[in-house]
Parts: sequence; C-alpha cells; structure tokens
Amino acid sequence: MIQVAVLGYGTVGSGVVEVIRTNQEGIVRELNEGIHIKYVLDLREFPGSGIEDILVHDYGVIAADPEVDIIVETMGGLHPAYEFTKQALEAGKSVCTSNKELVAAHGAELLSIAAEHQANYLYEASVGGGIPIIRPLNYALTAEIIEEVTGILNGTANYILTRMKNEGKDFAEVLKDAQDLGYAERNPEADVEGYDACRKIAILSSLAFCRQVDYKDIYTEGITKITATDIKYANAMGKSIKLLATGKRDGEAFFAMVAPFLVGSGNPLYMVNDVYNGILVKSNMLGDTMYYGRGAGKLPTASAVVADVIDAARHKGSTAKFLWDKRKLEVEDFGKCRNRFFVRMEGTKDEVLQAAGEYFGKVTPVEAQAEGEYAFITEAMRESDFAEAAGKAGRIVNRIRVKEE
Amino acid sequence: MIQVAVLGYGTVGSGVVEVIRTNQEGIVRELNEGIHIKYVLDLREFPGSGIEDILVHDYGVIAADPEVDIIVETMGGLHPAYEFTKQALEAGKSVCTSNKELVAAHGAELLSIAAEHQANYLYEASVGGGIPIIRPLNYALTAEIIEEVTGILNGTANYILTRMKNEGKDFAEVLKDAQDLGYAERNPEADVEGYDACRKIAILSSLAFCRQVDYKDIYTEGITKITATDIKYANAMGKSIKLLATGKRDGEAFFAMVAPFLVGSGNPLYMVNDVYNGILVKSNMLGDTMYYGRGAGKLPTASAVVADVIDAARHKGSTAKFLWDKRKLEVEDFGKCRNRFFVRMEGTKDEVLQAAGEYFGKVTPVEAQAEGEYAFITEAMRESDFAEAAGKAGRIVNRIRVKEE
Repeated sequence: MIQVAVLGYGTVGSGVVEVIRTNQEGIVRELNEGIHIKYVLDLREFPGSGIEDILVHDYGVIAADPEVDIIVETMGGLHPAYEFTKQALEAGKSVCTSNKELVAAHGAELLSIAAEHQANYLYEASVGGGIPIIRPLNYALTAEIIEEVTGILNGTANYILTRMKNEGKDFAEVLKDAQDLGYAERNPEADVEGYDACRKIAILSSLAFCRQVDYKDIYTEGITKITATDIKYANAMGKSIKLLATGKRDGEAFFAMVAPFLVGSGNPLYMVNDVYNGILVKSNMLGDTMYYGRGAGKLPTASAVVADVIDAARHKGSTAKFLWDKRKLEVEDFGKCRNRFFVRMEGTKDEVLQAAGEYFGKVTPVEAQAEGEYAFITEAMRESDFAEAAGKAGRIVNRIRVKEE
Repeated sequence: MIQVAVLGYGTVGSGVVEVIRTNQEGIVRELNEGIHIKYVLDLREFPGSGIEDILVHDYGVIAADPEVDIIVETMGGLHPAYEFTKQALEAGKSVCTSNKELVAAHGAELLSIAAEHQANYLYEASVGGGIPIIRPLNYALTAEIIEEVTGILNGTANYILTRMKNEGKDFAEVLKDAQDLGYAERNPEADVEGYDACRKIAILSSLAFCRQVDYKDIYTEGITKITATDIKYANAMGKSIKLLATGKRDGEAFFAMVAPFLVGSGNPLYMVNDVYNGILVKSNMLGDTMYYGRGAGKLPTASAVVADVIDAARHKGSTAKFLWDKRKLEVEDFGKCRNRFFVRMEGTKDEVLQAAGEYFGKVTPVEAQAEGEYAFITEAMRESDFAEAAGKAGRIVNRIRVKEE
C-alpha cells in the first residue's frame, strides 16, 4: 500500500479522496498495489464526511510519520504550503500539487530540492485542471523546439465570454449570474483580471522554454472592459473574444502576455467554449498541437493530482527530469511586442478612417455596430507604437488585440 | 552516445534522421548525451542523401552489432517488420515504431516480449501522427476509467471531407485533386474506405480498455458514398460530416465502429479540419479531453518517433508498463449498436414523413436540399432495427449516422 497524506480538504483535496476511493481498482491494476489515504490535514472539522478518523490538524503528525510516501498539497496559497512542501521533499517524500501560486513562485527551487532527495515534485493539476499538458510538454514534445504556447487557461473568464457571446449581455450582468450559479467566485478578480491565467502561462512558459519565467514580469489585462457591443463586432466578423495567455520566442527574445484577443474560426482555440480550457503549442517539427478539456472543477483537477500520485508511486526513489532551470528567462519589454489591433473610434466613417490612416497607417475598415462610431483593424505594430498613436488620435472607445491565424 | 538503427528510409524514416539531426542540441539537454544514427536499413540506394555511409541492405549487420541500443522501425507492413522487431526485443533492444499495421496486429504480443527482456516497444507515432495520444492514455489518464475514445484518425479522408464542405464538390472530384496535390495516394483505399482509421481505433481501444481489440472485428464504412448533396444537407443543419472511429463501453459491452457521422458544432471534433486529426476521450472523473494536431506527414510523425527514442533511452533497462492485455476484448455484435440516422428518401415531403413514421417511429424532419426527395433524423435505434426498417421502407437515397453531442 502506498501511504498518502492530503493537505487541505477543500474542493480539490476532497476530490482527490473521492477519485482514489472510486477508481481504486484501476489504481491497483496500474501499480500492483493500492493507494491508502492515511491522513487529511485541515484546520476545520468535517463531521459526517467519512474522513473524521484520518483528519489531523497538525502537520507535525504527518511529518513525523515515516510511513507516509507521498504528500498531496491542495491547500493553495504560498504559506504554509511552501514550508510543508519543502520539508516533505527534504525528507525524500514526493509532493503532488494543484497549487499554481506556489508552482509559479517557487517551482524551479522545489524541483531542484526534489531532485537532490530522489523525490518528485509533480504539478500537472496546477495548469489546465485535468487536461494533460505538463506531461506532453515534458515527455512527448521532447524532440521538439517549442516556439509558442498560447492558452485559454481560465474557465471562469471563458464561461463569462461565451455567455456574453451567446446571449448578447454585458460583462457585469453575466458575471453576476455566474456568481449566483457558482461558476464565478464572490471575489472574481483573479479570474476576470487575468491574474490566474498569468500564473499558469508563467508555469507553462518556464517548462516550454526551460528557464524560470517570473509571472510578475508578464503584462496582464483582464476581460472587465469587454462590452456587449464589442461582442457584436466580434460576431459580425465571425470571430470570438477569448482571454489568451501566451508565451513565445522570437529569435533570442521571449514575449509573454495575457489579454483578450479576437480569435478567428481558423484557430482551434476559437471553439474552446464555456468552462473548457485549451492549450495550443507550436513547435518546430510537429507544428500545432492542442490539448482540450475541463480546466477546473473538483473531479477533473483531482484526477490530474491522482495521476501524479500514481506517477510518483511508480517512480519511487528516482526523479523525473524537468527542464525548468532556475536561471531567469527575461521577458522582453512589452512595448516591443507586436500585435494587430481592432479599434473602435468615435466619429463618422470618414472621420474615423481618416484619423486611422493618419495615426495607425494602413488599416482594414470594420462596419460600425453602434451609433456615432466606426472601427478598423491595424496591421501588426509594436505595443508602444500603438499606445502612442492611440494617445494622439484620441476618441478611442475600445481596442482589442487580434490573434494571427 | 545512444546508438540507433533506422529500419526503412521512406517518408517517416528519413524524417526521423532529419529530426534527430536538427534538434540534437535539445536531445542532449534532455538526455545528457546525444543520439547517433549508426545504421539505416533499406533495400534501395540513396545517392547524395547524406546517409550513404550508414546505409546497409542486410538486417543481419544491425542484429549482430551489440552497440545498437534502439531500433526505429519505420518500414511499415507486417513482414519482415514483425520478425525484425521480435528479434530486436529478444536481444533486449528497445523498438520505436510508426507501423500501425504491426501494432494493431501484434501489439500485445510485442509488448509482452519487450517486458520479458527489460526493453520497451513504443508506438506513439502509430496513431495520430505527431499528436501525443498514446502517452496521455497510458500515463496521464491513469486515475480514470475511460468510457469512450472517438477520433478523426485519417488526415486524407478529413482533408477530402473538408474540401467537399468548403467547395461543394463531389467526392470523386476532390479525391482526384487531392491525389494530384499528393494529399491522397494513387491507391487511396486504406484512407477513404476507413481501413487505416480502423487499425488506429483498434490500437487506441486496446490501450484505453486494457484488452486486445482485433481490428477485423470492427465495422468499417468509408466516405466514398458521401455526395455533394449530403454536404449541402449537413451545411444547412450547421453540421459537418466527419469520418469518426469510435470505441466505447456500455456497461459490460464494448462497441466499436468506423463510419461517416454528422457532427454538430457543440462537439470539439467539429472544428478538426483539413489534414488535422483530433481524438476525444471521455472518462469518468475528467469528462471530455481532446488531443489535436497533424495526424500525418513526415516531420510530425518522425517527431513522435524521436520522442519515443528519447523515452527508450531514458528508461534503458526498465520497461514502461502498458495495460494492454493479450486477452481478447470481444466487440459487441454491430447490430446492437445504437445510433441516430439522418435519412434522405425519395418522394414528396408528405410521402417521406408518412413512410418515416411508419417504419422508423418518431423522426425530426429535415428540409429537402434536392428535388424529388425529403429527409429526416431518427431517434437512437439499433443498427439491426434500422437496417430492417430501411429494407422495408425502400427509396432511401443515402443515410448518415448522427453523432450525439
């Protein structure tokens, strides 16, 4: 029996207990032995939950038990998750986590501590919920030089944008409804401002480009300024507005950003709707591959954690190699990033197109979807040049970047 | 240095040489040593190709060289690929293959020989070209009970259907064009009759359901009877016609089939166009995940083979576990399989809907897209019941199954 302790009995932690108990038969077939949950750590009590017998409130009990092979860290947040993880790895226990804050902040360091102690630090569930994306990047695309990773990484934001598209409603209205339905949190900032997606793309970029990407260096813009009228324009153009998180190489430079983009139907991310996530990887021999599935939720995320537990059990005593170097990968100055922009501007068609030509160079006109304005799409231009031109031109109602096909 | 021999210098074999040479730096970073191609086996000569020095015509040379660690089998066909593979595995050498015929026919046996000799038989490239799908099924979804695997597994058939949809042309016309462009072979039977997809779904099903599925047991229907008028109906209904290969559990029963289906836009396979492949996996905790990418082509397929070579090098002396038992998984009698059917029938609207009601029970009418006929969609019914009803009703112009969302 593999002995496991689960730290944190919230949504994911309780899901891990459920997945292990439901699919125990398959686990035994896989490992030739079962997984036994010896402890659950939480400060709260859970009367009637079926885990009363194994619930402890003090991490010391788990740390002092040499029988525990694998720690599941589903507490979230940096502290004390960081200290508990470090202590476990130093004792040669593997740690499987869904905690993206901790992986984004200390991933390289914890991987290196794991390697020093013949243990594993596994984090498939930290990005894309249950979608296998960490493994493909680490094992399947090893013969590849990765050029770009772009994902729809936040299920809540995608759910809101999908409903805005389907129902023609404004952001605030859909958000409220999503909160009432439990699809968005009461404090939705991390989801709708892009902070969650930002941490996730930092993790994916670190792995894809083999160096530490600091999430604080990544330009991040959320979806709160997207309006029903923007969606109307998108629909008229046959595009969808998606919150994209992207990391890409351009020669020696590395660019990363999180922002809403207009995505055309030729892009496989176009059809990633509702709470689903999708991650598109571009690499030199393989071209485009995409990974799609439920990006959040109790059981999908828990399933990814349990797959990691099985992997850790299978590789007891040896460390899986992750090419995630502690050295920092500098994110290129955001102003140098090149994008095309969809721009809505106040004025008549003639006024707008004249101003567009004057400040933005060659543009493609877009039929107005609201009174008193007109719109256009620029050629690819530097973010800094766009910002300067927009400042001079004024009268801009909104602007949304356009994803190249 | 890892010493490799490549058997067969066709499209994929030459791609393997190219990928190894192009991405050698990344390989060294991954393995802490390089991969050296010591031999290429082919009966032909390749003057000016850069492999003249390592080209051999006799497998005995490779078999007798104890320095060779890993065999790449990209010959295709059953013989002598089977004998060469078996001999290599018995000598403790790992074999990485793109040969779906051989994997479908002898996968379970070769995996078991590999395990007896602490070697690996790896076959990521045999399904879905460069798309990582074997690894997710084997490693990432280990905590899952898989319920269904459905894929667009043949790039040529999908390319033809996509062009028929976009251009409104008939099958024969698009096929000819695809042949002239090199997207379809002069003898296209394996692609357009579904035989290739059938072998691939047998491999995926064997892995997903952990037992040997014999491809000869799988009902297989190609795309040759799909007409421009069928496409017109599909477009009018907002659906696409896709050649789907599917394996699924229903209680204790296992169903498998290959056939064209009408796929709605709510299904992620709907947007898998051109030569791309997509594989949708339904499992008990995770729900739907999809894997998307180039399903064929020299470099994508070669990249998957090289990822397997890296994996084999990394795990030298130990065998990765594949839950693909030699025991046979019986495919349920096809007549018991339940599907919905889109049916075009000769006659006026009234005549057709009356006959529909009489023979097929409750149906949903579909507006006619051609003179002298009308159409409808049935409820889910057994294949045998449908065949019987269709025989009695007569006057059927065509029928296409409808994929449930």
